[in-house]
Amino acid sequence: MAKHRGKTVGKKGKVVLASGTFDLLHLGHVKYLEEAKKAGGRGATLFVIVARDRTVEKRKGEKPVMPEEHRRALVESLKVVDEAVLGYEDFDIGSVIEKIKPDVIAVGHDQKGIEEQVCKGVAQKKLPVQVVRISKFGKDELNSSLKIKRKITQLYKR
Amino acid sequence: MAKHRGKTVGKKGKVVLASGTFDLLHLGHVKYLEEAKKAGGRGATLFVIVARDRTVEKRKGEKPVMPEEHRRALVESLKVVDEAVLGYEDFDIGSVIEKIKPDVIAVGHDQKGIEEQVCKGVAQKKLPVQVVRISKFGKDELNSSLKIKRKITQLYKR
Repeated sequence: MAKHRGKTVGKKGKVVLASGTFDLLHLGHVKYLEEAKKAGGRGATLFVIVARDRTVEKRKGEKPVMPEEHRRALVESLKVVDEAVLGYEDFDIGSVIEKIKPDVIAVGHDQKGIEEQVCKGVAQKKLPVQVVRISKFGKDELNSSLKIKRKITQLYKR
Repeated sequence: MAKHRGKTVGKKGKVVLASGTFDLLHLGHVKYLEEAKKAGGRGATLFVIVARDRTVEKRKGEKPVMPEEHRRALVESLKVVDEAVLGYEDFDIGSVIEKIKPDVIAVGHDQKGIEEQVCKGVAQKKLPVQVVRISKFGKDELNSSLKIKRKITQLYKR
């Protein structure tokens, strides 16, 4: 039985790493996490890094609606997730990979920047990590935090 | 091993019934569901009825932000939930109890109307059901769909 961050994980199962902001949790998030775990095959463990408020603010100019600890706890309360932790303020993918030692890194359809960073980090350090891109779930539905915010603003603006 | 709606449930565990709209899923919802399941003791099964869009519209004058099937699937993706189904358009608590046969019905802090209906139905039909009220989680945090909607409207209004 393998040990991962002090916890016993699945028999010889792969460790999959997923990440995101997960503001206003929706089905698109769950589908991304489910596909991520599937990419690790049978017995995989899904480890999720949830972006900190300050990291999101730096990147997008505004903090998420839900505070970071709420977002992390909500993600960890999902069946598909084994462990969710808050990210690192000075995000360095090389250090993250060395610390978590994932077999697979799953990047979402809207994480092109992260995908490039991950691929570069993996190549530079010659790490045995498979990078998998998860495609988008659905088309016109409320499967994006931005679309949900827009709908609410339209419904309740005065 | 007991059978419940065709599924095998916990050994001699109680069946707990919880309900709600669960629009914009947040930690307050998860805490309510966790407390509800705890009320059933060891090995309990948590069965959740998610309100239909039309039922919410009739009661509150407007549909939820997230469509009913999204809300149901998201609730069912939580670790604490064993099964989540959409509600019945013509809500009759007596029929619901006879169908699901819960040992415990957990009502949320904001479900006074439902609590009265449940207690009346249980008393009238002399059903062996325990009604438990779950207290509110936290105070000023974003643990209500209304507060989340207000925050978004304030952040994004033009």
